Amino acid sequence: MNYKMVVKTLGKVFILEAFMLAIPMVVGFIYQENSYMDYLLPIGLLLILGLPTFLLRAKDKSIYTKEGFVIVSLAWILMSVFGAIPFVLNGAIPSYIDALFETVSGFTTTGSTIISDIEILDKSILFWRALTHWLGGMGVLVFVLALTPGYNSGAMHVLRAESPGPTVGKLVSKLSFTARILYAIYVGLTVLLVVFLLIGGMSLYDSLVHAFSTAGTGGFSIKNQSIAAYNSAYLEIVIAVFMFIFGINFNVFYLILIGNVKKALKSEELRAYFFIVVTATIIIAINILSIGFNFGEALRYSFFQVTSISSTTGFVSANFDGWPALSKAILIVLTIIGASGGSTGGGMKVSRIAILCKSVISDIKRMLHPRAVVSVKFEGELLDKQTEKNVYSYFILWVLIVAVCTVLLCLDIDDFLVNFTATITCISNVGPGLSNAGLQMVGPTYNFALYSPFSKVLLSIVMLVGRLEVFPIILLFTPRTWKRG
Amino acid sequence: MNYKMVVKTLGKVFILEAFMLAIPMVVGFIYQENSYMDYLLPIGLLLILGLPTFLLRAKDKSIYTKEGFVIVSLAWILMSVFGAIPFVLNGAIPSYIDALFETVSGFTTTGSTIISDIEILDKSILFWRALTHWLGGMGVLVFVLALTPGYNSGAMHVLRAESPGPTVGKLVSKLSFTARILYAIYVGLTVLLVVFLLIGGMSLYDSLVHAFSTAGTGGFSIKNQSIAAYNSAYLEIVIAVFMFIFGINFNVFYLILIGNVKKALKSEELRAYFFIVVTATIIIAINILSIGFNFGEALRYSFFQVTSISSTTGFVSANFDGWPALSKAILIVLTIIGASGGSTGGGMKVSRIAILCKSVISDIKRMLHPRAVVSVKFEGELLDKQTEKNVYSYFILWVLIVAVCTVLLCLDIDDFLVNFTATITCISNVGPGLSNAGLQMVGPTYNFALYSPFSKVLLSIVMLVGRLEVFPIILLFTPRTWKRG
Repeated sequence: MNYKMVVKTLGKVFILEAFMLAIPMVVGFIYQENSYMDYLLPIGLLLILGLPTFLLRAKDKSIYTKEGFVIVSLAWILMSVFGAIPFVLNGAIPSYIDALFETVSGFTTTGSTIISDIEILDKSILFWRALTHWLGGMGVLVFVLALTPGYNSGAMHVLRAESPGPTVGKLVSKLSFTARILYAIYVGLTVLLVVFLLIGGMSLYDSLVHAFSTAGTGGFSIKNQSIAAYNSAYLEIVIAVFMFIFGINFNVFYLILIGNVKKALKSEELRAYFFIVVTATIIIAINILSIGFNFGEALRYSFFQVTSISSTTGFVSANFDGWPALSKAILIVLTIIGASGGSTGGGMKVSRIAILCKSVISDIKRMLHPRAVVSVKFEGELLDKQTEKNVYSYFILWVLIVAVCTVLLCLDIDDFLVNFTATITCISNVGPGLSNAGLQMVGPTYNFALYSPFSKVLLSIVMLVGRLEVFPIILLFTPRTWKRG
Repeated sequence: MNYKMVVKTLGKVFILEAFMLAIPMVVGFIYQENSYMDYLLPIGLLLILGLPTFLLRAKDKSIYTKEGFVIVSLAWILMSVFGAIPFVLNGAIPSYIDALFETVSGFTTTGSTIISDIEILDKSILFWRALTHWLGGMGVLVFVLALTPGYNSGAMHVLRAESPGPTVGKLVSKLSFTARILYAIYVGLTVLLVVFLLIGGMSLYDSLVHAFSTAGTGGFSIKNQSIAAYNSAYLEIVIAVFMFIFGINFNVFYLILIGNVKKALKSEELRAYFFIVVTATIIIAINILSIGFNFGEALRYSFFQVTSISSTTGFVSANFDGWPALSKAILIVLTIIGASGGSTGGGMKVSRIAILCKSVISDIKRMLHPRAVVSVKFEGELLDKQTEKNVYSYFILWVLIVAVCTVLLCLDIDDFLVNFTATITCISNVGPGLSNAGLQMVGPTYNFALYSPFSKVLLSIVMLVGRLEVFPIILLFTPRTWKRG
């Protein structure tokens, strides 16, 4: 393990977080909330820990898979540990464990909350809450790589560990340029969304918060009723379209930017994602006609909820807990599938599901013709065996973790379905689960406050497992990772 | 496709089923139920269809994977189609679709039922119902192979397609001897169980029926309250122990029979299965203390229910729907894991879960040391890549089928949890699902009658998919299977 490079990179993450914490502090000044000490303390802590790492000289700059995983998982855990402090100091969330849950939920762009009345909170702390989504969406280490040129090609392992999806490629040969392009597209789309929201009559503050939340596919709102509070078809459609957009692989946007629209539209993952969203929207719209919506309303609510769940944002425009079982079952399946690889969304990723399906089909062909050579292609290229294997392992670990977490949560709350949907909404980084008629606690309009501290820590780990795609967190807890040699 | 060999083998299955149907006819005579016509008609049909196939001469006796899968899946479907007839003629189940569901549930050793009052039915038809479990448990084609020596080594593909588990080996070099040894052990253990039940004061008829049901790990009883009706700790413990035994890989019994006890007890799958059952029993026993059982009762009910679900039998000695969520969640996990490969039980099989876990661990090791050679061993031998791949594909298809079936059932009954547990109890061939407070329809003491005919056919297919381990049924519906060449 190259400890020096690990520490140096973590130091940069600390400095970055200190800068980010200054933004809600400024918001607090603007709204005269007298809350600057809530941010100054963690900023001071982060600078004290972060600045000395610049003095550290690393002769050996090499970073391998192991270092990549360790850097990413430690960065995300520590970032959450410090990012939770303002919630406690501000008084918004008195318990530190609760604040940690909320911060992990923010950075991982899950959007599950333990706050029951959001609307009474300070504007500065709600701004920070939404900003964690935005920062976590594209990734904090991608940001670090974009800003600091001093990394060699080994930093690819860091990018790979933080970026979602089965395959991560560089857009251009230089890694820091790739990171800059990704953030440039991200900032551009966020600004565009802010403009659209302003046009719809949202205030600048509300627009910024919801744009951060949408761009990161997070789901934190500043209204207890989420987007339903605005009761505006225009805003719902704008946000739905942008949720869909942020669930697309950013490679597609890059291809469009450099003028290769044809290749962009040929993306198998894009087509599959589009197909899933359209099909689910139509089926759910027809299904919810039965509970008294007219066709226009049904389509509007269905489109919003499908893009919200598929992109793993988790905004809510209607209480889907009252929808028929078919709609709820489809939403659960969408939760598990999630958004595209290389997007800001979570879940298993459309590309992984596509690879799994293609691989299984090729196995069936191979059974029928044992001597035939059957190969699996994805995005026009032959799939290498290692990628295929990793997708399988990911899938299996995912199912195992869901099973274990569901069972452990049952120690706490006596309802299987609530615990099962809470687990998959957290591991997929969606946010709301299905509530149960009896308990109504983790549904679209309810929250996670009723869980015990143990369950909250468990669900926090599960959210990190989901955002960092299983392996980094697993490896962090593997003794072998820390062995010398 | 070697159609002649397919037809010839199906013919033998028909003849075998005709003989089997004669048994309940005799039972009917003994109890003077005047029901012989209920059996004579299907016996006649089966003989008319089966006998002419003996005239068929097949020059080419070769059977490959494709033929193996087609023979097995067609045999199971047709066997159920004819086996359902007595239920209709007898009047026990007036609707043919319902009778088909019950028969598929019988042969696949699932034990899900659509009959609400079992105790008013004829003894002969209940005997046939239990006999389908016994025949399906070890496999009808294994029986055919045991009785007819005329097959060459290609018949291994038939054995492999029908026998559960990731790997199927011959016990002895000759295939028909292997099949005979398996059936000899099966008959021996069944007789032993009958003796134990008779000692406990059960009548001969009740003993036979429950022994068939236990040996096949099916779960059909002749009491509405299942084993709970006898209210006997002795009978519960005897049946629990035998359910556990029939969930063990029969290779273990063969090793014990030939005196190699040491090797038998070294079986990794046996140890894992034992560990799972003991751990689950203890956790559930402690968990259900909270609902007012004393420790003895808790252990008795827990042990019975754990062995019943783990072996995928599905007998019930207590209404576990009222147990705490932790116990129910564990029972759901046990349903999915299932029994050992090479046993009469269902589920994913302990060996597959073990292989999946080992394979994932080896992948994690490989990530840490990309250049190290990491191999996966199971039962002391290196696991070949093809077996590993098939286990993965099996797992993925299993999850996909569960998802699709659950969603489709939601079209019918408006309760996600009821449909989800109905699907996994059917695909794992267990029998009872979790009922829901509102619906109470597929729980331990309720039944599947409320589902529509479409859902019943769907669940029948899912039961066959579970018993034949996915691939044969999938291939049957693949157009490529039927292409020439």
